[in-house]
Amino acid sequence: MPSGNLLVAQGGGPTAVVNCSLVGVIEEAKRAGVTKINKIIGALNGVDGIIDEVLIDLRKELPSTLRKIYHMPGAALGSCRRTMAEEDYGRIVDVFSKYNVRYFFYIGGNGSMHTANKVAQAARDLGYSLAVIGVPKTIDNDIPHTDHSPGYGSGARYFATVTKEIGLDVESLPPPISVIETLGRNTGWLAAATSLAREKEEDAPNLIYVPERNLSIDKFLSDVSNVYDKLGRAVVVVSEGLKDEQGNYLGGIKTEASKDGFGRGLPGGAASYLAELISEKLGIRARSEKPGLAARAGIEYVSSTDQREAHLVGKMAVRFALEGKTGVMMTLVREDRKDYRCTVGYVPLEAVSAQERLLPNEYLNKNGNDVSSSFIRYCLPIIGGQVRSFASLARHKLIKRGKSLSTGKSLHTNF
Amino acid sequence: MPSGNLLVAQGGGPTAVVNCSLVGVIEEAKRAGVTKINKIIGALNGVDGIIDEVLIDLRKELPSTLRKIYHMPGAALGSCRRTMAEEDYGRIVDVFSKYNVRYFFYIGGNGSMHTANKVAQAARDLGYSLAVIGVPKTIDNDIPHTDHSPGYGSGARYFATVTKEIGLDVESLPPPISVIETLGRNTGWLAAATSLAREKEEDAPNLIYVPERNLSIDKFLSDVSNVYDKLGRAVVVVSEGLKDEQGNYLGGIKTEASKDGFGRGLPGGAASYLAELISEKLGIRARSEKPGLAARAGIEYVSSTDQREAHLVGKMAVRFALEGKTGVMMTLVREDRKDYRCTVGYVPLEAVSAQERLLPNEYLNKNGNDVSSSFIRYCLPIIGGQVRSFASLARHKLIKRGKSLSTGKSLHTNF
Repeated sequence: MPSGNLLVAQGGGPTAVVNCSLVGVIEEAKRAGVTKINKIIGALNGVDGIIDEVLIDLRKELPSTLRKIYHMPGAALGSCRRTMAEEDYGRIVDVFSKYNVRYFFYIGGNGSMHTANKVAQAARDLGYSLAVIGVPKTIDNDIPHTDHSPGYGSGARYFATVTKEIGLDVESLPPPISVIETLGRNTGWLAAATSLAREKEEDAPNLIYVPERNLSIDKFLSDVSNVYDKLGRAVVVVSEGLKDEQGNYLGGIKTEASKDGFGRGLPGGAASYLAELISEKLGIRARSEKPGLAARAGIEYVSSTDQREAHLVGKMAVRFALEGKTGVMMTLVREDRKDYRCTVGYVPLEAVSAQERLLPNEYLNKNGNDVSSSFIRYCLPIIGGQVRSFASLARHKLIKRGKSLSTGKSLHTNF
Repeated sequence: MPSGNLLVAQGGGPTAVVNCSLVGVIEEAKRAGVTKINKIIGALNGVDGIIDEVLIDLRKELPSTLRKIYHMPGAALGSCRRTMAEEDYGRIVDVFSKYNVRYFFYIGGNGSMHTANKVAQAARDLGYSLAVIGVPKTIDNDIPHTDHSPGYGSGARYFATVTKEIGLDVESLPPPISVIETLGRNTGWLAAATSLAREKEEDAPNLIYVPERNLSIDKFLSDVSNVYDKLGRAVVVVSEGLKDEQGNYLGGIKTEASKDGFGRGLPGGAASYLAELISEKLGIRARSEKPGLAARAGIEYVSSTDQREAHLVGKMAVRFALEGKTGVMMTLVREDRKDYRCTVGYVPLEAVSAQERLLPNEYLNKNGNDVSSSFIRYCLPIIGGQVRSFASLARHKLIKRGKSLSTGKSLHTNF
């Protein structure tokens, strides 16, 4: 690999730790020294910034700024959801050549890994020597061949914590039902993570529904009714991408303009749809909550494990590139040992490019309304350990020493 | 006032600091000594617990538990939204007499203050000597005759922080529009507080709509369109109780079962309704977020000023009762000085009973799509000071030393 410049960009939806990976790339590139990596270039708004040559000099950013960026929501370089044309890949290699970029790091999800793979191919075709490394990032955890993706742990912690907090609210003011909508277009990883909110069996969430299984409305209403009869309340969690038995999004926005850069319609509204259904069909007061973007921007709920791992894959991406690796995505590999630890590995970009990992059957219960215990073992260490626990009053029963009269006559001599 | 027992209860929707007031009452009652206040009784689930005699002995709770309860979402004693019948008030006095309750503290909102007032009247009518003190609590800030209500500061801080975080997310991945729905059935105090998220003029929120002014859909679409044309993005904040020009809730759930104990329908859905409208009419991708209950249960966003003041009104309520005051609600009184400070005062319960304080005109801008600077001066100290600030990259422009060629020929000798 000839010595040259490095370019890093961020693609797709931000996560709470997407900037930790960016900082990891920059810090490790600086550590390598200018003889190996000269310029550290940032492209603004993902591939858009490469194609339009909107580039910044990241070596000039103060180390103190970088440590603060670590805790910043959104993508510090800006992001994009560009629909790529075939000629775009050649253009990117052209720009790389112009700026002597020899190392390209794309921090992103499935779509961005597809782009990175095509850039690597274009460079090979054009005979341009370039190391391309994908740095995985997604709140949805839907990238295959990695134990989990940086970003998921914090999103999972967000939804588990919020479900626990809402559970305490609902428990203290019965009888409502709350339907909470998590992010997750096609996969239920985030909805499943709310199971980590429970300390006792009757704790929220009482029911969890994921897009991996289409929803039978009758079964749903009967599930809710059963929980309500038992507890006098219910907290129900649903993924935004939940579909009915015909495979249609529940309550999704259907307008053309709501489609994203990849032509995908925006789901969302499942919770409000189902809350209204509960009110109407079961005659029970129900409301819905949909934190939406707050879940991936909510830096207060970040998982420290997630931050550390996101930073690590950024750093190791640079090392792997310097060792001569290219056309690969970084992965997290869970070690087979008692206490949780992940090391980093890699897979060819084509193995993950535009692929999607669904929740496996073994992580769901038979009834299709909850997770299995093996999911909990999988997920708990990723979110950085148990969700915050809250104290409650011991509620010592008051001991009466007098006997009641309904006359209003006071009997308080012994009390 | 004869020496006797104290009873405390919590009514209405919880806030992030409603337990701080409870702890204040308990701590001050203990401090007064058993000769003045003997039993410290908690009624579970508000007036329901009094009427049904579901009572606990709060003196037995460990001080360490009380300090933890301080940071617990939900109402630690449980709460209620009971539709009171006339005979209920006599029944409450009967129970008080049976347990020699001489001090009654009701922590709640407008509805609970109405109840407390009726209990005080019933005690007078029955010749039962009883001190009744209302301790204000509401996330909505709609109780009159107090500078603000405990609970509001934390809800305001929640929505301001989340709006800031979502703003950073939207800024980094244009071009979407996000419509954020705040709590606030009839008043826009919480929506208005999101204005505190801004550091620069173009920061989120770009537009704020409150229920004090009915919404013209045409005006709304034109406002959104203007912001979008200027910035290529928009973060719009709306209260859940926003109404159209005919006075109907925008997108509210209308089923009978969704009504609360006071027969009030559940609003909610304004944001998703308006996001769909933007997509449809303006052809711009728009989504909605509705944190809902997460906003009053989100203990991570609590305002320390709010906690301190909620604790203070609880403590002072006990002192005022011991001084012989009754039939009053505690208030926060802002001192006329440069640096913010509130002391406590009181108003007769009938002055606040079932009253509602709307956002005054002077706190809104002329256009009806934002707050005024006097609102910001009012609100900033209440939320505990500036919302968390985030760093951003300096984005030093990359300086090219070579000239571009579109041939793919590299010119990087000087770069």
